[in-house]
Amino acid sequence: MERESNIIDGKQRSLEIQAELKEKLTELKENNANWRIPLLVVVTVAPTKATLSYLAHKKSAAVNCGIAFKEERFDSSISQEQLNQRCKEITSDVNVTAVIVQLPLPDHLKMWEVVQFIPQEKDVDGLNAQNQGLIQVGLPCLMPCTPQGVLHLLHHFGLIVKGQHAVVIGRSPLVGKPVANLLLGREANMSVTVVHRHVADLKKHTLDADIIVSCVGKANLITADMVKEGVVIIDVGINFVEDQTRKTGVRMCGDVSSDVYPKCRAYTPVPGGVGPMTVAMLMRNTVIAALRQQGLPELDEGWRNRARTNPQ
Amino acid sequence: MERESNIIDGKQRSLEIQAELKEKLTELKENNANWRIPLLVVVTVAPTKATLSYLAHKKSAAVNCGIAFKEERFDSSISQEQLNQRCKEITSDVNVTAVIVQLPLPDHLKMWEVVQFIPQEKDVDGLNAQNQGLIQVGLPCLMPCTPQGVLHLLHHFGLIVKGQHAVVIGRSPLVGKPVANLLLGREANMSVTVVHRHVADLKKHTLDADIIVSCVGKANLITADMVKEGVVIIDVGINFVEDQTRKTGVRMCGDVSSDVYPKCRAYTPVPGGVGPMTVAMLMRNTVIAALRQQGLPELDEGWRNRARTNPQ
Repeated sequence: MERESNIIDGKQRSLEIQAELKEKLTELKENNANWRIPLLVVVTVAPTKATLSYLAHKKSAAVNCGIAFKEERFDSSISQEQLNQRCKEITSDVNVTAVIVQLPLPDHLKMWEVVQFIPQEKDVDGLNAQNQGLIQVGLPCLMPCTPQGVLHLLHHFGLIVKGQHAVVIGRSPLVGKPVANLLLGREANMSVTVVHRHVADLKKHTLDADIIVSCVGKANLITADMVKEGVVIIDVGINFVEDQTRKTGVRMCGDVSSDVYPKCRAYTPVPGGVGPMTVAMLMRNTVIAALRQQGLPELDEGWRNRARTNPQ
Repeated sequence: MERESNIIDGKQRSLEIQAELKEKLTELKENNANWRIPLLVVVTVAPTKATLSYLAHKKSAAVNCGIAFKEERFDSSISQEQLNQRCKEITSDVNVTAVIVQLPLPDHLKMWEVVQFIPQEKDVDGLNAQNQGLIQVGLPCLMPCTPQGVLHLLHHFGLIVKGQHAVVIGRSPLVGKPVANLLLGREANMSVTVVHRHVADLKKHTLDADIIVSCVGKANLITADMVKEGVVIIDVGINFVEDQTRKTGVRMCGDVSSDVYPKCRAYTPVPGGVGPMTVAMLMRNTVIAALRQQGLPELDEGWRNRARTNPQ
């Protein structure tokens, strides 16, 4: 029982958020004659089995919340220019609240290019430059879902202590950089170190951390000898390792070895930690986008509101 | 002489860059019948004596480079909405290459709001959300001048070692955050710690640093006991301390105490370090903006090009 008590249950929290969103959407429908049900469009290109499984999670969450959901699927022959153009057309439809491009894309397509064709107010993955910059300067935006989910968990479970130290492993603009910005901004007021593949002595940094956020994608990257007692671990990695006890022959795990868990004040498991929160935040962003587009008052965003009142 | 040899002479480097830009602009004029001389507009609101001195530096650099310069001055009665609107109008003029808002603004005006009304391609201070986000994701942009100047000096003088550790003091979106992003990105591949006013034990972090970038604005914040032998110091702070030996009774200094200098592998003095580089990078951004607007090949941007070939 003691071991279970330090688990951060992202799956449970994700379901609670979805229930809150459903309630909010029901209330909006009842109280606003002109209310349009939010429509989330997911653009896929030649989806693989894994892509379709991510898609199914999103669709099921949308249904749970009462958000309309549509897939726009293209085959792998589509060019970058065609995909950019199609995204532009899809988002120009006033009935479309929100558009995301399901990752990964085939190799010939550049994700960072295509997301620039989704306008800021419909970019619920928070990946276009406008949204990335608005986070940076602390203005209202649509925040990338995984970083938002990480901060939500840390705040919800009271795990942030102003002035403590966080170490973020990985520097991608998808997760590492925005998480670092949020942890060092007014949202958390922590000091933050970002490390990555070119940093030789990872352990030196992780031993110092009160919170570790790992976004690498490498099983057993963090082991018990690399962390201090009482650390909080947020494991964003998704990896598959061989496991003959499973029917599939593989088992999903994060970046953090399970021998770390007993040393943790709290940790997110994989699966069931950050993953479901990413989906919940996508739904939350879709509702935020719908409210803004329809000129209605913002969601009460708790910890985020504090950070917004005074940029910087 | 030994002490002088570790000085990073930003003033000298700034003049060299201005000379290079002048040569480039002369060449462009000679070889392009339709070439329009770049025009930089600086918006000021109720400028103080200090503001006018910054302005004079910029004007003089523009004249040096062969860039046309214009001040658009408003008095303190202008409202936020009026200023936003005027910025929009000024930038819509096709003859205007580049627009910046001279800081600081009077208290009733929000800088982060007004810069959103300057379109990305004319925002040569690199402060609107689009430019801030494009840096974050590693796409071509106009980079904020001070962070760009810092990286330029570090690269020009060969002071960056991949995998080494940088500590950035200050987390503002003007300097701290973009410098941190550039140091941990492909431009430098360093590990980076960002600290700020809520971090109690500054010394613990600075003692670990191979490079310290201080952007706080507090004289003598960094003292000799807080750094290791051979550190590189980039001092972005501008402070005025009492000095009865001066006619004015004050002396300009940075965040770093002069007793740190003998321990440094290299350091930027204040004045004469980062300040003049900020002005040089503003001129460079204006030329970059002019080339892009007129459909001409980009400047050779050295270290920045490497970082651009593959976002992330």
